[in-house]
Amino acid sequence: MYKLTAFFTKPENAEAFDAHYNTVHAPLMRAVPGLQSLVVSRNLRSFGADSPYYLIAEMIFADRDAFKAAMATDENKAAGKDLMTFAAGLVTMVHGEAAEV
Amino acid sequence: MYKLTAFFTKPENAEAFDAHYNTVHAPLMRAVPGLQSLVVSRNLRSFGADSPYYLIAEMIFADRDAFKAAMATDENKAAGKDLMTFAAGLVTMVHGEAAEV
Repeated sequence: MYKLTAFFTKPENAEAFDAHYNTVHAPLMRAVPGLQSLVVSRNLRSFGADSPYYLIAEMIFADRDAFKAAMATDENKAAGKDLMTFAAGLVTMVHGEAAEV
Repeated sequence: MYKLTAFFTKPENAEAFDAHYNTVHAPLMRAVPGLQSLVVSRNLRSFGADSPYYLIAEMIFADRDAFKAAMATDENKAAGKDLMTFAAGLVTMVHGEAAEV
């Protein structure tokens, strides 16, 4: 599988961030053709320290070609545009091959 | 599900790191009671920038209680001890509830 992961640092207004993520952004992401699943991790902790991230979202695609095709869609462009309205400066994204080992 | 995620920044000797991760560390982690799956992401890229992480490992448990029980096992202590032999200074770990949304 191929995974796009978005790491979000803590927003100033966590309640507003969560509301926007849940009701606007997640639906936009789920509409992206080729997306197999969207998995969100919350209430993040670290060991003996604050978590560096507030929320982690994983977007799973069949393979790299499916990911690349998805990134080029209008639906993904809409999701990316929305992302910048509420998470610019908070989000880091990485993508790569993911496999159970 | 409950997920423990380890983010590794780029090691000085990637070949040695990969060899140790694959042949020593992953087997130690897979031996931890309660671990449901270990998913590793490699060849990470970002958009228009280098990925901040070299490797991401996700360890999946049924729930927070299973995670806490797993962390207390001798097998996990052995894996944690091994981690510090090859990835001290490279690894950040977070854990939290993960759900498909």
